Amino acid sequence: MKYEYLTNTDLDKAVNEYITVLKAQGLAPKAEIVPVAKAAGRVTAKAVYANICAPHYNASAMDGIALMAQITFGATETTPVRLKNTDFIQVDTGDKMPDGTDAVVMIEDVVRDGDDVLLFSAAVPWQHVRQVGEDICAGDMILPSYTEITPAALGAMLAGGVLTVDVVKAPIIGIIPTGDEIIPPCENPESGKIIEFNSTIFSGILFSWGAIPKTYEIVKDVKEDIISAVKTATEECDAVIINAGSSAGRDDYTNVAVSTVGEILYHGIAIKPGKPAILGYAKDKPLLGVPGYPVSGIIVLEQIMKPVIEIMTGKNLHREEKVVATLGRVLTSSLKYREFIRVRLGVNETGEYIATPLNRGAGVVTSFVKADGIIDVPQDCEGYEAGDKVEVTLLRPRADLDDSLTIIGSHDPLIDEVIDILKIKDKATVVSSSHVGSMGAIMALKRKEAQMGGIHLLDEKTGEYNISYIQQHFPNGGVTLIKGVKRVQGIMVAKGNPKNIKDFSDMTREDISYVNRQKGSGTRILCDFLIKEKGINSKDIYGYDREEFTHTSVAAQIATGTADAGLGIFSAAKIYGLDFIPICNEEYDLLVDDEALNTDKVQNFISVLKSDELKKRLAALGGYEVY
Amino acid sequence: MKYEYLTNTDLDKAVNEYITVLKAQGLAPKAEIVPVAKAAGRVTAKAVYANICAPHYNASAMDGIALMAQITFGATETTPVRLKNTDFIQVDTGDKMPDGTDAVVMIEDVVRDGDDVLLFSAAVPWQHVRQVGEDICAGDMILPSYTEITPAALGAMLAGGVLTVDVVKAPIIGIIPTGDEIIPPCENPESGKIIEFNSTIFSGILFSWGAIPKTYEIVKDVKEDIISAVKTATEECDAVIINAGSSAGRDDYTNVAVSTVGEILYHGIAIKPGKPAILGYAKDKPLLGVPGYPVSGIIVLEQIMKPVIEIMTGKNLHREEKVVATLGRVLTSSLKYREFIRVRLGVNETGEYIATPLNRGAGVVTSFVKADGIIDVPQDCEGYEAGDKVEVTLLRPRADLDDSLTIIGSHDPLIDEVIDILKIKDKATVVSSSHVGSMGAIMALKRKEAQMGGIHLLDEKTGEYNISYIQQHFPNGGVTLIKGVKRVQGIMVAKGNPKNIKDFSDMTREDISYVNRQKGSGTRILCDFLIKEKGINSKDIYGYDREEFTHTSVAAQIATGTADAGLGIFSAAKIYGLDFIPICNEEYDLLVDDEALNTDKVQNFISVLKSDELKKRLAALGGYEVY
Repeated sequence: MKYEYLTNTDLDKAVNEYITVLKAQGLAPKAEIVPVAKAAGRVTAKAVYANICAPHYNASAMDGIALMAQITFGATETTPVRLKNTDFIQVDTGDKMPDGTDAVVMIEDVVRDGDDVLLFSAAVPWQHVRQVGEDICAGDMILPSYTEITPAALGAMLAGGVLTVDVVKAPIIGIIPTGDEIIPPCENPESGKIIEFNSTIFSGILFSWGAIPKTYEIVKDVKEDIISAVKTATEECDAVIINAGSSAGRDDYTNVAVSTVGEILYHGIAIKPGKPAILGYAKDKPLLGVPGYPVSGIIVLEQIMKPVIEIMTGKNLHREEKVVATLGRVLTSSLKYREFIRVRLGVNETGEYIATPLNRGAGVVTSFVKADGIIDVPQDCEGYEAGDKVEVTLLRPRADLDDSLTIIGSHDPLIDEVIDILKIKDKATVVSSSHVGSMGAIMALKRKEAQMGGIHLLDEKTGEYNISYIQQHFPNGGVTLIKGVKRVQGIMVAKGNPKNIKDFSDMTREDISYVNRQKGSGTRILCDFLIKEKGINSKDIYGYDREEFTHTSVAAQIATGTADAGLGIFSAAKIYGLDFIPICNEEYDLLVDDEALNTDKVQNFISVLKSDELKKRLAALGGYEVY
Repeated sequence: MKYEYLTNTDLDKAVNEYITVLKAQGLAPKAEIVPVAKAAGRVTAKAVYANICAPHYNASAMDGIALMAQITFGATETTPVRLKNTDFIQVDTGDKMPDGTDAVVMIEDVVRDGDDVLLFSAAVPWQHVRQVGEDICAGDMILPSYTEITPAALGAMLAGGVLTVDVVKAPIIGIIPTGDEIIPPCENPESGKIIEFNSTIFSGILFSWGAIPKTYEIVKDVKEDIISAVKTATEECDAVIINAGSSAGRDDYTNVAVSTVGEILYHGIAIKPGKPAILGYAKDKPLLGVPGYPVSGIIVLEQIMKPVIEIMTGKNLHREEKVVATLGRVLTSSLKYREFIRVRLGVNETGEYIATPLNRGAGVVTSFVKADGIIDVPQDCEGYEAGDKVEVTLLRPRADLDDSLTIIGSHDPLIDEVIDILKIKDKATVVSSSHVGSMGAIMALKRKEAQMGGIHLLDEKTGEYNISYIQQHFPNGGVTLIKGVKRVQGIMVAKGNPKNIKDFSDMTREDISYVNRQKGSGTRILCDFLIKEKGINSKDIYGYDREEFTHTSVAAQIATGTADAGLGIFSAAKIYGLDFIPICNEEYDLLVDDEALNTDKVQNFISVLKSDELKKRLAALGGYEVY
């Protein structure tokens, strides 16, 4: 089959066609018979009908006497009916109704008179009898086809005399990782080697969809080896995912392997990330080429594999929940591609959702760990302005979001430690925390996008922290400053300080490469203050424009030797075994929206902030002074 | 420890106290270490920090040449910079950045001039370099404690050099079924024997909560045996559920067993169903006595065991979704108990949810199969009027409900068969179908509670079906009648017609016991018409007040010999092997709300109604004539 590598194919068109072709090739759910006791969570492959009634006999619903109601007719308070002991039979709850009886009189209403019994009111036929079929009647449909079997449905089937059930067989999905640089996960990888974790992510996703993942050994970029691996997996599995090599580059053999073992319907889809996907098949078995970056891979699985798995499993996997959110920042998007943007969602005091786009790098797997939802930006859309309303497909339960505490601002490890302590105290705690720097905190609180944010903003004139910024940005109040910690800021340098850096004026030296923090961060403001104080022109510092977003990422650059110095907190230097030249003791505080101040979630956070447990943890991190 | 069997204990108070006592006894999540690849869906037992950065080296993000950006400074369109082949190193995407380089120039921007290279624009330091820690920095917290591990989180851990993870160990929950009449599930149970399916339901529920159920053999109602079984299970499991025998009756030894092996905190809770629960413990192990009716058991598990399992698993299981619904009928509730009422939910064209209470019998497990949600009626509430707004806790995803087709009306097996065919065509189909009789359909459509309902209403004067009822109840229109099928109604009698019944006038015979349908059902209206026609007084028919809700349940009564005759459709008689005396050929049609008529869900239903597949199925059921 001839095909071209195109990247302008519409996703929906391609997926619909893929499904149509696969179905025409015979793709359908396969069935297997399992004992009902093992069928929880499975999906029925055909309708289930009751074999017997439940209850399957007429049973007494009370302790008392069983009799024919007719013989009690006429009984009243003043004219009781007298029964001989041959007229009734004593029964307990659950006992089969004796033949020739159609009602039960409760033991409380039975008056003994020697061997006889007196009744002072008439029984109604079938009173206190649990009749045959009260719950289920033989022949009734208990469950239709393609219905997920709940625990209660297990009970209904067993009660209806159904002991085995036809369920959809879980499809086996082969995963083939390929690539010369790829190595299995390890703690100490060599430079240039890439840890292969996509197959683990994909396995987790496929398993959650009701499929059985089967991961093969890593295959090198050798054409024949890849073809042979795809051939084997196609024989052994119901579908195959070939990870990476799906572009049209020099060492990309996935397309060759797929078109050798089967056919290619599309190569390349107009989505971002995920563009170089390959939609192939061998008879009724889908063969999917998935790009190598983890985020691209997840998007391709979600958008292309999920509808295929839905057919194979009979499950309804596409009932995502959607909410309308306000965009916290501008979001640009390419006109060439439909883009899937991960976002964090916060909810403000009026119940409005605020979406903050996360790092869009296709290699940034943590963006999916942090993401609360995804914005699907159409191909012909250039993006949105801050404040625009956008539809967000949720990645976690809406109830979790509605209860979540949104923290946007400067990052300090203490935020993560507080969250951890909160989770230990109450597992239901949900905190959404984004790192956008101290000025980002002020902006987010102004726009009511967050309940809280960390700030450490030095006023050059007064040498005081935070207060003047709040006075300037919130002239009418509306926020409260909760004192956090004092922490040591300083210059991080390689262990042993090989370049003999003494203070910030050394940064202009020709042999020094600097790594900076992003604009708007408190540390950057401190840095700008330092060079001004020393009369340094920022152009004279090599790497002043190299911006990192956290203390640890600055430390990481220095630790790997790609920078000689950077400003950051002591605890970050400590983690990376760096030397540290203290510069100042700054005040890292929390700015809280007054409307949220008295909510449980904020108060819980503040109480942990003041707790001994946190003090202990900060002491271990080092460089902190608590009030 | 002394205790009393009380049934006025408040549920919340009891559960809070139970949790407090269990925690004081040491109940807490246990941890185990598992490989990250096996940790999908598990819950972290402590915070996870990255061991290494991801990426763990500076990598080229493009195919091109790596160099020191400095040496390119000053390059412009008109004044290119010339580089010797010792000034740069060729790199591919993903390659480690060679020592002494800090930028990559894309191959497209490299102009070869012999061995030299010309660049027409300056490189910015760190351009096209994927820097160390772009995704994760060593020391960063990847996940806090008690967080469910998503597939993406597996990738983040492996990328961060984390190969094993401390997760919460799944607790093992013992389930001991007890009772003299209890037998394992079978296809042909003896009368008086009760099929034991509760342990299967409980296992399914516990498994869905992340626990490992362990079901023991059935124990007879022998005090010593029950004590010994509870003792063994307490040793082998983390918690024990003793099913039934939890009342204070003659053969109820669960309380004795629990107080012998451990302690009882509460016996009896003011809830319905679920009153005779036993909240006990042996050291830090919960011992829960659960009543025998399946619905009571499920409620007790949900209300009392779930919060305990939450502690043991570290999972957040109580984030149910709630909606406000309008009650379709009056709902009475006892002032003595807090009641949990299962309801069906429909959604009308204006998006309003309508709740219809289901059978409240504690033995009716199908009520949980059919239920879309639960209404929690407070103890001091007498119930609600039809039309009242009530809060409903959902048992299925809200998105499913929002798309569902609500059918309320007369039942015919063809409704179930159409649903099954719809599910086979589109697995995402959700239909909510309630059987309330033909007049119920008219009322439901008047109140806009349903999109559709089955009706077969005979006009005594004209002999015509359905039309005159619609004219009377919808004088201004608003509904459309979709012709369904003709079906044979008749008298169902035991096989061989042993009592020699010829027509309806035989029903007054002294040796005949009749079983009727509920008022408002089309079959009941037919029945009332028949006795009027024959001049029979309903008081002269024994069992005229005995009401069943479906054709099959009428047939079931006759099949078990507790009634001699009843009116119903041919297909029901056929399932039960009954003889059938045809009376008339009635018209079973579908009444559709005009506002819903053109929706996909209604149109899909109608198209299946007219399909050959349905005709084939109706032919197999028998007694139908299709238009």
